[in-house]
Amino acid sequence: MGRIVTLLTDFGTVDGFVGAMKGVVLSRAPEAQVVDLTPEIDSHDLRAGAWALCEASRTFPAGTIHVAVVDPGVGTQRRPILIQHDKQLFVGPDNGVLCLAAPAGPAWHLDNPKWFCEEVSSTFHGRDIFASVAGHLASGVPPTACGTPISDRIRLEQSRASRRGDTIIGEVIHVDRFGNLITNIARTDLVQAPGWAVTLGDLSVGEIRGTFGDVARGEWVAYVGSSGYVEIAVREERADARLAALGTKKPMVTLCRN
Amino acid sequence: MGRIVTLLTDFGTVDGFVGAMKGVVLSRAPEAQVVDLTPEIDSHDLRAGAWALCEASRTFPAGTIHVAVVDPGVGTQRRPILIQHDKQLFVGPDNGVLCLAAPAGPAWHLDNPKWFCEEVSSTFHGRDIFASVAGHLASGVPPTACGTPISDRIRLEQSRASRRGDTIIGEVIHVDRFGNLITNIARTDLVQAPGWAVTLGDLSVGEIRGTFGDVARGEWVAYVGSSGYVEIAVREERADARLAALGTKKPMVTLCRN
Amino acid sequence: MGRIVTLLTDFGTVDGFVGAMKGVVLSRAPEAQVVDLTPEIDSHDLRAGAWALCEASRTFPAGTIHVAVVDPGVGTQRRPILIQHDKQLFVGPDNGVLCLAAPAGPAWHLDNPKWFCEEVSSTFHGRDIFASVAGHLASGVPPTACGTPISDRIRLEQSRASRRGDTIIGEVIHVDRFGNLITNIARTDLVQAPGWAVTLGDLSVGEIRGTFGDVARGEWVAYVGSSGYVEIAVREERADARLAALGTKKPMVTLCRN
Repeated sequence: MGRIVTLLTDFGTVDGFVGAMKGVVLSRAPEAQVVDLTPEIDSHDLRAGAWALCEASRTFPAGTIHVAVVDPGVGTQRRPILIQHDKQLFVGPDNGVLCLAAPAGPAWHLDNPKWFCEEVSSTFHGRDIFASVAGHLASGVPPTACGTPISDRIRLEQSRASRRGDTIIGEVIHVDRFGNLITNIARTDLVQAPGWAVTLGDLSVGEIRGTFGDVARGEWVAYVGSSGYVEIAVREERADARLAALGTKKPMVTLCRN
Repeated sequence: MGRIVTLLTDFGTVDGFVGAMKGVVLSRAPEAQVVDLTPEIDSHDLRAGAWALCEASRTFPAGTIHVAVVDPGVGTQRRPILIQHDKQLFVGPDNGVLCLAAPAGPAWHLDNPKWFCEEVSSTFHGRDIFASVAGHLASGVPPTACGTPISDRIRLEQSRASRRGDTIIGEVIHVDRFGNLITNIARTDLVQAPGWAVTLGDLSVGEIRGTFGDVARGEWVAYVGSSGYVEIAVREERADARLAALGTKKPMVTLCRN
Repeated sequence: MGRIVTLLTDFGTVDGFVGAMKGVVLSRAPEAQVVDLTPEIDSHDLRAGAWALCEASRTFPAGTIHVAVVDPGVGTQRRPILIQHDKQLFVGPDNGVLCLAAPAGPAWHLDNPKWFCEEVSSTFHGRDIFASVAGHLASGVPPTACGTPISDRIRLEQSRASRRGDTIIGEVIHVDRFGNLITNIARTDLVQAPGWAVTLGDLSVGEIRGTFGDVARGEWVAYVGSSGYVEIAVREERADARLAALGTKKPMVTLCRN
């Protein structure tokens, strides 16, 4: 069995775009295993794409090739790039969508048309450039043959939690499928001290717990989630809906040590 | 090519959760083929998950490993389990989601952390326990090494059709993607006698036919569906919508022999 | 690694139907790689299915087996068929869904039940006929063994753009995930002459450009899209929504040479 090639896009599946990308990969690397991460990123939502790619990619084995195409700038001068990070390869547009999953490591501008489709359309680089390069990488072409090294790739601005003494201030950066609110306050921000009390806007959520199961159904709960950040949820309900019902938008998240 | 590992969850795909599970499986069993059953079960809908797993899994070859994670109790004391049924393996929480697909066979409490991810989060056992165990199973770890045998696993309560002489009374237990109504009246309940007339609430649907094609477009039809149960449909329309328009909720399904 | 088998349906994933098809394929050809094109074609929308299959399939390598099931006539007398086109195989109902992807090539009526599931339901030929035949094809059964040659398969009526001198008149035949409008005016209709000006209903869209990037955000733009047809879009917005706001339905697309 050959290399693993994953696909993450905002293309949906009904137009056949993702299918066409799979065909291009498998034409160049018939032994590769093509794996869907998701085709359902919201159209042009770079941040959501970067988040999902980061969450999904980190568990894959060395040698995996990830193709991520959320690309509002297709057909403009934004560069197609390749990054090698943590023994995995990441292929996509140079617009920040790769920056959370591959924060460091050597990068290349994919400027060698030898690895592109014979005809490159102006609107579907997912097929004509990114899938094609990924297929060639999967068939054994080395990253260094794909383009020119670069050191100025684009990163998304990220809000960071700030700490002053016994207070940490952060915000919600992602809402997951279940309506849980994921903040930008990392486990590592908490040191090992217990006793952090969490406030969401004006709402007191209580101390950080181990998990959902530590509160009753329908109650608010804060805990360190599976991606390593503080999350705020309502057990077996949607926290985002409860928050919306309170009329609160983009609330600040405050942690205070008791 | 290695073992087949299927995934069924209520995670959707946009958060990267299912992708992360795939990476964990493939890290432990790089030769495995990961196959999506569905990531789109309604949040926390155990019954829908159990139904889909049962419909989808029965056609797979011996040796397939199915991972099913619909898990409102993640982070509570519910057990992670493994069931061997009909030469296939089923991995998931002990909450009934596996009970239709794997109604019998030896079962184990997955209590050997050797096969878990190094760090087990309290909220994402899909990745940290279930996918990890499935990956190890796919790489050759035997079920018996994964945990302690159990005999008290949880089953979902299922309504059963009742028969008195020439009358069978049942109900709709599933509505499929096309709006067709699937009842709990099995082909085997019908014996071989023809001439069963079907009533849905107050609506006479007529005799059980061979298929849609036996009625005109837009007409009601009852037939034995592909899962072996009596189904009620409207040819090339949605029966669920037609039923809702009649103001009928949860109607009884009655079969009478003419 | 074995043959590639792709699946395109209007089944969604939540009922387990597509999963059941995958199991049938892999039971007959355990070495095959099953690849999702899409399960999300609108129910019974033959035209959308035919379009997506055509877009997705053309990039796959020789030997790929495509299974396409959009099948409002399941259980009626419509024939199950197999077409060999361009070194790929296409399996599905004889209702036009295969006609864009496989416009030519030898075809067979799948009338040899040897390659079907043991029991063939009247409502789920996707599993019992199409996936089963595809699995056997993937395991090495030749197309000629699967049925009787036919030459009268059904094709969808397709609107064609018409040209009179320096004017081409066409229409929108597909709206993609991003709201872009794809017309039936092909690149080959344009000859090599530059300077075609595009009108959509009453709206002047300007000359055909290279790509989105040639206009400002929020502006209308026409270009030759990745499938080889003239497309009309609004940069980084939804053209279909803008068009609806204008109250225009099914507008004519006119190209005039300046």
